[in-house]
Amino acid sequence: MREGDGVERTRVGIVGAGPAGLVLATLLERAGIESVVLESRSRSYVEQRVRAGVLEHPTVELLRGIGVADRLDREGMPHEGISLRFGGGDHRIDFADLVGRGITVYGQQEVVKDLLADRVDGHRGPVEFEVSDVALHDVTTDAPSITFTDATGTDRTLRCDVVAGCDGFHGVSRTAIPDGLLRIAERTYPFSWLGVLARAAPTHDELVYAGHDRGFALYSMRSPEVTRLYLQVPPDTDAAAWSERQIWDELGTRLEADGFGLNEGELCEKPSVTGMRSRVVEPMRYGRLLLAGDAAHIVPPTGAKGMNLAIADVRVLADALVSLFEGGSETGLDAYSDTCLRRVWRAEHFSWWMTSMLHRFDDENDPSEFAGPFGRGLQLSQLRYTVGSRAAATSLAENYVGLPHEGTR
Amino acid sequence: MREGDGVERTRVGIVGAGPAGLVLATLLERAGIESVVLESRSRSYVEQRVRAGVLEHPTVELLRGIGVADRLDREGMPHEGISLRFGGGDHRIDFADLVGRGITVYGQQEVVKDLLADRVDGHRGPVEFEVSDVALHDVTTDAPSITFTDATGTDRTLRCDVVAGCDGFHGVSRTAIPDGLLRIAERTYPFSWLGVLARAAPTHDELVYAGHDRGFALYSMRSPEVTRLYLQVPPDTDAAAWSERQIWDELGTRLEADGFGLNEGELCEKPSVTGMRSRVVEPMRYGRLLLAGDAAHIVPPTGAKGMNLAIADVRVLADALVSLFEGGSETGLDAYSDTCLRRVWRAEHFSWWMTSMLHRFDDENDPSEFAGPFGRGLQLSQLRYTVGSRAAATSLAENYVGLPHEGTR
Repeated sequence: MREGDGVERTRVGIVGAGPAGLVLATLLERAGIESVVLESRSRSYVEQRVRAGVLEHPTVELLRGIGVADRLDREGMPHEGISLRFGGGDHRIDFADLVGRGITVYGQQEVVKDLLADRVDGHRGPVEFEVSDVALHDVTTDAPSITFTDATGTDRTLRCDVVAGCDGFHGVSRTAIPDGLLRIAERTYPFSWLGVLARAAPTHDELVYAGHDRGFALYSMRSPEVTRLYLQVPPDTDAAAWSERQIWDELGTRLEADGFGLNEGELCEKPSVTGMRSRVVEPMRYGRLLLAGDAAHIVPPTGAKGMNLAIADVRVLADALVSLFEGGSETGLDAYSDTCLRRVWRAEHFSWWMTSMLHRFDDENDPSEFAGPFGRGLQLSQLRYTVGSRAAATSLAENYVGLPHEGTR
Repeated sequence: MREGDGVERTRVGIVGAGPAGLVLATLLERAGIESVVLESRSRSYVEQRVRAGVLEHPTVELLRGIGVADRLDREGMPHEGISLRFGGGDHRIDFADLVGRGITVYGQQEVVKDLLADRVDGHRGPVEFEVSDVALHDVTTDAPSITFTDATGTDRTLRCDVVAGCDGFHGVSRTAIPDGLLRIAERTYPFSWLGVLARAAPTHDELVYAGHDRGFALYSMRSPEVTRLYLQVPPDTDAAAWSERQIWDELGTRLEADGFGLNEGELCEKPSVTGMRSRVVEPMRYGRLLLAGDAAHIVPPTGAKGMNLAIADVRVLADALVSLFEGGSETGLDAYSDTCLRRVWRAEHFSWWMTSMLHRFDDENDPSEFAGPFGRGLQLSQLRYTVGSRAAATSLAENYVGLPHEGTR
C-alpha cells in the first residue's frame, strides 16, 4: 500500500528471503495478512545458495500444508534412516521402525525456489530483491518502520505493525537491538568442515555419519547425480591446501566399511571450509521486532537442524501474528520467545550431542569433555549404546526426524 | 591346604573383602572352587563401612541366585523410580512403567554382612582379616603367590593359580602391575559431595536428584529410620566449615518442591566430603592377576554404579575361572578385560552423564562443556528432554536399574 513519497505500509515487514522469511510470508499470506519481504541479494543468488539439505518430518508437513510441496514430493528423496559408522562397523538407525517417520533430502535452495515461485510468480505478495542500507526504526513502538534503498536506487520507507528479523547471523535485525538487552550463550568448536559437492551418483541411499579415529566424515547427497561430502579439519584450514586426491583418499579412509564404495566425480565448486559453532540469543523479541532462525540462533550442521529450526520459529510467529491481527491479542507475541526457545534449546542440545559424539577433539587446549582418553572412551561408549539400545536409538531418531511443532493454535 | 612352614595353597587368592571379593569367593565356592580372601581391615570394620546403597536389578538377581538375599528380600527397600527435580518442578522417572524393573535400596555394608555370615559363620571358606604387608609374586606365571602377615603377626605365603585384585582404588593389586602397562583414562570433577547420615525418617519413598541453580543435592535413605543426604560443595571444602543448621537449610533450598518436606534429625556421624572422579584402567588383566571393581575403575556416585559394577566384574571373572579349572580353557580369562570394559564404559558414560547434567559447573577454569551460559542451557534442555520424552526417560531408567549382565556362560 503506497502512501506517497516513497512511503508504503504493510502489516509485517520481513527482513530476509531465506526459508524463515519466505515461509513466514507464505503462512501470513494464506491467513490473509499482508507482508513485504526485503532481501539484499538477487533472486538468482538466493535460489542457488547451497546450504542445508535435510527436511524434518514436521517441516515437510508444514510445506505441504501451505501448498508449496508439489516438487518436493516429486523430487525430494525420502530417507527412513541414517548410518552411524565407527570402530570399523556400520550401524543403521532405522527411523521408520523406531518412530514411524523419516526425513526428506531436498536442498534449502530448492525450498526457496518453490516459495519464490509461489509468492513472486504467483503474484501473491511482494519480495524486494537487492535492497541495501536496510535500517529498522521505532521497533519498541507499535508503529515501526524500515528504510531501505531498492534495486533501482530509490530510497523507500516501509511502515508496518511488526518487523520480522529473518536475515541470519550477519543480518541487521539483531544488531538493531541495543547492547546489553540480549543474553548470548555460545560454544565454538575446535574444528571445521571441509565440504565438497561432486558430480557423482550416490552409492548409498542414506546419510552416513562416521566417527573415525582420524576425525568425522559425512556422506550425503543432493540429488541422484550429486554427492555432498564433508571432512572434519582443523579450524584454520585453507581449503586450497587440500588436493582433490587427498580429499577423496581421506573420505575413503574415514567412511570405509564392508561393501561401501565411494563414487568419485568432478567437483561442482571449490571445496569450502565452514566453522562450527553453537549460539543462542535470548530473548527473541524486542518490542515489535521478532527474531527468527539464524538471526537468533546457530547450530553446528551435524544435526541438520538449522533450516528446520528457522521454519519452526516462523510457524510460532505466524500464529502469534494471526492472533494479533485477528483478535488484537499480544499473548502470542508475549509467548513467542519462550515457546521458540524450548525447541531451540532442544535442537542446540541435539546438535551439540551429535557433534560431540562424532568428532575428534585433539586440541589439548580445548575445553571439551570429549578430549583425551576419557573423552574418547565416553564417545565410543555413547556410540555403542546409541546403536545398541532401542531407547537410545529412538532418542536419536525422534530428534533427527524432528519432534512435533508446538505452540501452534 | 597347608603345605608346611606357613605355606598354604588355594585355587584363587582374593585380595579384599568388599562386595567384589566376597561375591567372587561365594560364586567360586558354589562352583566347588576353593579360595582364600585376604582383608587388611577387621570384620567389624568392613561390616560397618558405609558406602553405596543402591542395588541394580541384576545385582539383586545375582545375590538371590547365590542364596545370600534372604535379609535383602526382607529388609531391602524396593524402589520403582526416582525423581529429577529442577526449575522448581519435580519429575518422576517411573522405572516400573518404563522398563518393568526397579532397584533395591540396601547398604553395601549389609551386603558385606550377609556374605560374611554365609562364608565365615557358615564355615564355607576362609577370610583372613587384619592382614598386613600383602605382596603379590610371580603373577605372570601360572603359579603366583601372595605373602602377608596375618592378624597374629605370623608371616604366611599363599600359593594359588590366580590372584583376584579386589582391593579397591588404594589397594596393592593394581600397583603390582609395572608402570607403563596400564592405560589410564580419568576425569576429576570440580566439586565434591558433602554427605550426612541423619536419624530421621524418610519423608519421601524414592531418591530425589536435584539439579538446582545453587548446585546438586541428593535425597536418599538407608532404612525407615535413617536418611542419607548429599550436597554439591567446592572440592576443597572443609566439612567442619558447615554447621548442621547450614546443611539443613541448604538441603531444604535445593530440594524444595510442592508438598515435599524434609525431616531433620540428629546426625549419625560427622559430615564427610567425598571427591568426585571417573577413572578407567585398561586392561584389567596382567598374567594371572585379574583386577575387579574399584581396583580397576572409579565412577562418581551420581549413577549409583560403583558396587554394582564391581559385582558384574566378578561374575564375569567367576565364569572365566570355572572354565579354567573345569576345562583348562584360558578363553574366559583372555576375554575377561574386554567383556568387563564394555559394561565399565557404559557405567562410566552413564555416571558422567548424570553428574554432568545435575551439577553446577561454576569454575571458569574448569574444562567443562557444562560451564557458562551455553553449558547451563545444555543441562536444562537435557533435563527437560529426559523427563519429557519416553525414549529419553527409558534410557535413564534402563541404565539406572542396570542393563543385563553379559559374558555369563
